[in-house]
Amino acid sequence: MPTIALLTDFGIQDTYIGVMKGVIASIAPQAQVIDLTHAIEPQGVQQAAFALMTAYRYFPPKTIFVTVVDPGVGSERRALIARAGDYSFVAPDNGLLSYVLKAYPYAMVYELNSATHRLKQVSNTFHGRDIFAPAAAHLANGENFDRMGSRIRDVVTLPQPYLRVEADSLEGEILHIDRFGNMVSSIGTIEWGGEDQCMLKAAFGARRAAQILAAGALRIACNGAEVVGLSRTYAGAGTGELMSLVGSSGFVEIAVNQGSAAQALGAKLGDRVVIRIG
Amino acid sequence: MPTIALLTDFGIQDTYIGVMKGVIASIAPQAQVIDLTHAIEPQGVQQAAFALMTAYRYFPPKTIFVTVVDPGVGSERRALIARAGDYSFVAPDNGLLSYVLKAYPYAMVYELNSATHRLKQVSNTFHGRDIFAPAAAHLANGENFDRMGSRIRDVVTLPQPYLRVEADSLEGEILHIDRFGNMVSSIGTIEWGGEDQCMLKAAFGARRAAQILAAGALRIACNGAEVVGLSRTYAGAGTGELMSLVGSSGFVEIAVNQGSAAQALGAKLGDRVVIRIG
Amino acid sequence: MPTIALLTDFGIQDTYIGVMKGVIASIAPQAQVIDLTHAIEPQGVQQAAFALMTAYRYFPPKTIFVTVVDPGVGSERRALIARAGDYSFVAPDNGLLSYVLKAYPYAMVYELNSATHRLKQVSNTFHGRDIFAPAAAHLANGENFDRMGSRIRDVVTLPQPYLRVEADSLEGEILHIDRFGNMVSSIGTIEWGGEDQCMLKAAFGARRAAQILAAGALRIACNGAEVVGLSRTYAGAGTGELMSLVGSSGFVEIAVNQGSAAQALGAKLGDRVVIRIG
Repeated sequence: MPTIALLTDFGIQDTYIGVMKGVIASIAPQAQVIDLTHAIEPQGVQQAAFALMTAYRYFPPKTIFVTVVDPGVGSERRALIARAGDYSFVAPDNGLLSYVLKAYPYAMVYELNSATHRLKQVSNTFHGRDIFAPAAAHLANGENFDRMGSRIRDVVTLPQPYLRVEADSLEGEILHIDRFGNMVSSIGTIEWGGEDQCMLKAAFGARRAAQILAAGALRIACNGAEVVGLSRTYAGAGTGELMSLVGSSGFVEIAVNQGSAAQALGAKLGDRVVIRIG
Repeated sequence: MPTIALLTDFGIQDTYIGVMKGVIASIAPQAQVIDLTHAIEPQGVQQAAFALMTAYRYFPPKTIFVTVVDPGVGSERRALIARAGDYSFVAPDNGLLSYVLKAYPYAMVYELNSATHRLKQVSNTFHGRDIFAPAAAHLANGENFDRMGSRIRDVVTLPQPYLRVEADSLEGEILHIDRFGNMVSSIGTIEWGGEDQCMLKAAFGARRAAQILAAGALRIACNGAEVVGLSRTYAGAGTGELMSLVGSSGFVEIAVNQGSAAQALGAKLGDRVVIRIG
Repeated sequence: MPTIALLTDFGIQDTYIGVMKGVIASIAPQAQVIDLTHAIEPQGVQQAAFALMTAYRYFPPKTIFVTVVDPGVGSERRALIARAGDYSFVAPDNGLLSYVLKAYPYAMVYELNSATHRLKQVSNTFHGRDIFAPAAAHLANGENFDRMGSRIRDVVTLPQPYLRVEADSLEGEILHIDRFGNMVSSIGTIEWGGEDQCMLKAAFGARRAAQILAAGALRIACNGAEVVGLSRTYAGAGTGELMSLVGSSGFVEIAVNQGSAAQALGAKLGDRVVIRIG
């Protein structure tokens, strides 16, 4: 029985997530449900797409991801189910899957439109409960994609995060601020989705990027502060001091040893980050 | 093996919930435990009763609900186990089950007083761990209600939420504010528990209520603001604008498209909501 | 299949915990994972050690605790696996296990250094995902301690919480503030770890301690406020009034009936608590 992983902006102060799990348990009682996170900022589709991209590969094959961040619930956007590699996804058609799908050029995406794979009563405002959770449970039960929807090829895609490449600099944006106040940027050293975009490597070529990283010959600037070089760990600067490092998902972060960089810099999602080389 | 669903005001910043799950796993290792929510406001018995009423029907038959919001822990209130339809409930006797039990006139309620279905050491202050969680686990193992307590017929009942019906208006109160700042009122279009109370239908008759809803001929006022008509979804007003709609549980809500109505109106639980007809 | 319980300072706003569960499900799909808590204050090793000590005994035998509060991640501290009584523990070697291990003089502790029981790629900053979660999953699969690490006898140990004993008083500190604002002190009536430290019993002898408790002949002072005697429950004072009691884990707490003592007294972790006898 596959794992079902949930990623939403519903928070956990209400019964929304509990109810979705109740629906899943009603249809697929053997499924194991894991919360990926429910603390995506309300309507933060890009933040969710980024979180999903950095997380999904740590789950077992056959995992079904239910991802619901949905500014347009009940308006005209479609519901999707997708098969990409060993994984399945259930999501609104608003770009949430775009970074994951980049890695799978042969992914198959369906509009989820079967009336028999949803709850009998479908509300206008809680498709997580009425449409997405039931669909995931039916997939967990082995239901066929073809019986649940119809193949589409015009999935809504998010724009890439902000990126400006100059001769000796690379400008990106803050995509996530974590519990510790670490500011995770869109500037990565690994590949973005399946391609090389918004990466040191893409901007400067693989060889020079490797040289830059090895030499630590970078200055990272954000909100008026600047850090020189990359630390290896969060303990790489004095307590309370600002630093930069490559985080566990392969993206450049700004952090404070045992403190909050986001608080120190008054940072928020979308703030610009500039990396200057040399 | 049945599902056990937990609803408390314990929050998740402490180990209270983890410990209750440890106790359940010790007694009924096969039980699947689902968090309904732990973010009920401290001592918010009515909020919990409302949350339970709107959520329980989405869980599979045989689900056992452990609901602990307990201003009087260790004082004289009794502990209850109840069987209502296909569901079981474990709760303090302070009204928490009253809205659910309204739907089940033939529910059987017992005082949970067996000394052999609790932990050996019972503290004065954490009955969730010492009494309620073990009782749920024993129910999950198939234990008989009769062996765990004695039948009672004088369960404590909450008063209905505030309601004043005039010729052309209906006044209720805010029972829940969700993560998005949506303000959920006590004024519903479906049935309250098993009866028709505090409902458009009850106030104005089924026919006129249906006409009112179809025509959207309402003005909803709260904390000095007023909204005209009911939107179909949260996208039914301009971004940042106030609106009203019937939420996914069947109750009238005040919301802001991609914003927080509660913040915009400075709302809190118990605030009055007035619906004027025509 | 054993239970795996997680205790961290990671919070739940990010995908860190979800990803750790994905890793566990990949290696040990049958394991049942329980969140003990993820809201330990960032880098709060002592708070975590205290939480673990008060919680672990409520879990079933064979439970594996993964505890990650790790100011020095990636610096020189070692990773540990430990067997103590019926329980196993995976933790950084920074004192997190010290209060639990006090209760088990025959505990066996290993440095976790096997390269085959971690993820293939190990980051510098997220050992919870790359080292600790995989180790717990392998233990759940029945792997032998000896194959995963090498026995050590110089585990890092936390100092005991602050304690000063005078002829007629006992001074401790606040170790935890819970969701309700209850302030849990280091002064206990049961045994601390396996020994008698920082306890009424240790300070004044078993007989006098029992007399003191029975008579309630104490004044508890903190941050300028003083409470006389011990209540039995949180309802033991008037609504909104300050009180003191022995909490569900056996430690003296300061509380407010249906309110927050921590807020009333402006309390924080480490604040001094003085108990005066007679």
